[in-house]
Amino acid sequence: MSTKYNSATCPQVPARGFTAAEFETRCARTQKMMAVANIDALLLTTEPEIRYFTGFLTRFWLSPTRPWFLLVPASGKPVAIIPSIGADSFAATWLDDVRTWPSPQPEDEGLTLLSATLNEIIGPSAQIGMPEGPETHLRMPMGDFTRLRSLLPNVSFTDATEIIRDLRMIKSPAEIEKISYICDLVSGVFEDLPELIHSGMSEIDIFRHFKIACLTRGVDDVDYLVGGAGPGGYTNIISPPSQRRVGPGDVLMLDTGAVFDGYFCDFDRNYVFCKPEDHVKHAYETLIEATQAGFDAALVGACTADVFETMNRVLAKENSQTNNVGRMGHGLGMQITEWPSLTATDQTQLRPGMVLTLEPALDLKNGAMMVHEENILIGADGPTWLTRLAPPSLPIIGA
Amino acid sequence: MSTKYNSATCPQVPARGFTAAEFETRCARTQKMMAVANIDALLLTTEPEIRYFTGFLTRFWLSPTRPWFLLVPASGKPVAIIPSIGADSFAATWLDDVRTWPSPQPEDEGLTLLSATLNEIIGPSAQIGMPEGPETHLRMPMGDFTRLRSLLPNVSFTDATEIIRDLRMIKSPAEIEKISYICDLVSGVFEDLPELIHSGMSEIDIFRHFKIACLTRGVDDVDYLVGGAGPGGYTNIISPPSQRRVGPGDVLMLDTGAVFDGYFCDFDRNYVFCKPEDHVKHAYETLIEATQAGFDAALVGACTADVFETMNRVLAKENSQTNNVGRMGHGLGMQITEWPSLTATDQTQLRPGMVLTLEPALDLKNGAMMVHEENILIGADGPTWLTRLAPPSLPIIGA
Repeated sequence: MSTKYNSATCPQVPARGFTAAEFETRCARTQKMMAVANIDALLLTTEPEIRYFTGFLTRFWLSPTRPWFLLVPASGKPVAIIPSIGADSFAATWLDDVRTWPSPQPEDEGLTLLSATLNEIIGPSAQIGMPEGPETHLRMPMGDFTRLRSLLPNVSFTDATEIIRDLRMIKSPAEIEKISYICDLVSGVFEDLPELIHSGMSEIDIFRHFKIACLTRGVDDVDYLVGGAGPGGYTNIISPPSQRRVGPGDVLMLDTGAVFDGYFCDFDRNYVFCKPEDHVKHAYETLIEATQAGFDAALVGACTADVFETMNRVLAKENSQTNNVGRMGHGLGMQITEWPSLTATDQTQLRPGMVLTLEPALDLKNGAMMVHEENILIGADGPTWLTRLAPPSLPIIGA
Repeated sequence: MSTKYNSATCPQVPARGFTAAEFETRCARTQKMMAVANIDALLLTTEPEIRYFTGFLTRFWLSPTRPWFLLVPASGKPVAIIPSIGADSFAATWLDDVRTWPSPQPEDEGLTLLSATLNEIIGPSAQIGMPEGPETHLRMPMGDFTRLRSLLPNVSFTDATEIIRDLRMIKSPAEIEKISYICDLVSGVFEDLPELIHSGMSEIDIFRHFKIACLTRGVDDVDYLVGGAGPGGYTNIISPPSQRRVGPGDVLMLDTGAVFDGYFCDFDRNYVFCKPEDHVKHAYETLIEATQAGFDAALVGACTADVFETMNRVLAKENSQTNNVGRMGHGLGMQITEWPSLTATDQTQLRPGMVLTLEPALDLKNGAMMVHEENILIGADGPTWLTRLAPPSLPIIGA
């Protein structure tokens, strides 16, 4: 394996970023929903939401020091209120109105500027929408949010999760192109993996080889890689790799969220070293069957619970679905997991442009488990696989 | 360059994880401060805080779906209230009391279990401490936090940022060992970089080669890599790499937060391709001089503003410090940036065990800038470099 990344081997690299027209469309859709909900401005503080409306892509969010604020007004372009370190990045966005304060400045971390901007744009008594519902959080200090409210005594705050959720669940063609590309790149890495690893390697080394192979192939980052290996299955699907060396009979699972231009894939692959047990092979085939059944059920007009139930019926032939994953798939895009969840109770209607994972899991013997995951696109004429499907039988390494 | 990671070439890999004694010490220090502040329990929701008290290390935090809760009571071990998907991981921690709910379950995402546990452990009227101050946030939906407060009408909430800040700013020997190791690994990658890249490569390709070299050398993840290149300097120090190809006269800067066992380094290196301009070489040397002056001033008993002023005096010989970075360094550890900030006004006293970055910046011609960064440990007998120092003169690639 060469570490040289040869861009010529990846001829169809999607364009990076988005056109201004894409952001205009996102903004117009938002403002239409805001009008219905009587929201005068959205106040956004989190990475995916600010990137969704501006294209601002940076790893700098890892630093918790500085908050970032974006207002989406009832009409016109969004207004950014950001730390001065972001001025150059925001100058390259489609926004016209970018206001900065010198940060860090914990005694007034943008609050004076933010409240003045709100007063100017929406007036002293208005309704601000913020994501307050499931899968959201507020990325600013709680103490500062309390102070902001006291600076805006006549402004009311309301939950805008549904607006953000409805927007982000439906991916544009440009978004789908990026997700599809990263799914394809990583599918190739998984296909090559049996040649890169062998019995006797530690999980840490296997993970390292996988990440290097992803980068070599053109992935931007491997933000998410979890999994594990164990005799006849694994017990943990969110753990980092251990120093344990894999051996004959071990089932290995790698579950990755790799990224291209800020968009994730999220799928896994299972392998067995040398000697597969029959019940393990059978469990794998049941998971593949359940995934295919979920795909067939993922039609526009069906809801997430329908897809869950369809997959669950296949798994029920094997054993009861008692594992602790809690769902059998979810949305995917700018984040490794997004709304909706594929559970027995989630009633989200499937619509064209949704990107979902299908992720059935089975309990095996001795507390072990197995999970399989693929990524699909919902379309008017039926779903499409974004990942190149795993082999129908459990791949054996070092047979 | 080989992609084979040979662990034999890195003989002094620190042990992963921490002993139970380390967590006991952290907990005891916390409870002593809680007693002084009349806090009956800390409620923690964010990754670094929960990891600090439990050792729970996972990339799964990237998924925003599930909240995680940790209570630190007035005495005894912390109590975890977590989604069932984390049960196996938490069973491996030093905790005795781990309570799980089946998640995702947006209609009751742990709130019933959390409020019942709080009632049981601290009683219906008590004072809960939560981080609400600078550089903190609450990682749960705002709507759920409002509901939690209504479930606990007689419980009061108070800011506990100072406790968390004071704890985490002072690193233990085991933490320092991990940070020191990752600083050393990445220093080697930077030293090798001139042999890995050349004029004509795109920034994207340069970043990719850097990440592969880090992984090959034994780094777990390269979570943070920003920087850029431009003629006579760069204009943005938080941007992702572009498709622009570097050429003669370009100054290239890579700033990385790579990780070993959950601990970060955070430093950068500058290079120039082929033909350095005199003023660029001089600016580099001034930044090195400022960094050394900051190091010399980083003595126990001094405060962060003293270190800032010392560095600033060196820079002032060159030009006014008008860049938009806003500080000249910060804490470092489980996060790429932590308290404190090295600013003109921050009065944090330096204490043994603090790990800091020194990060002076200079404006150059035509809106370009240059930033230099090293990592240091504060000790009773003076500071120690954790990074292997950058060369005293600007390194030239392809001279």
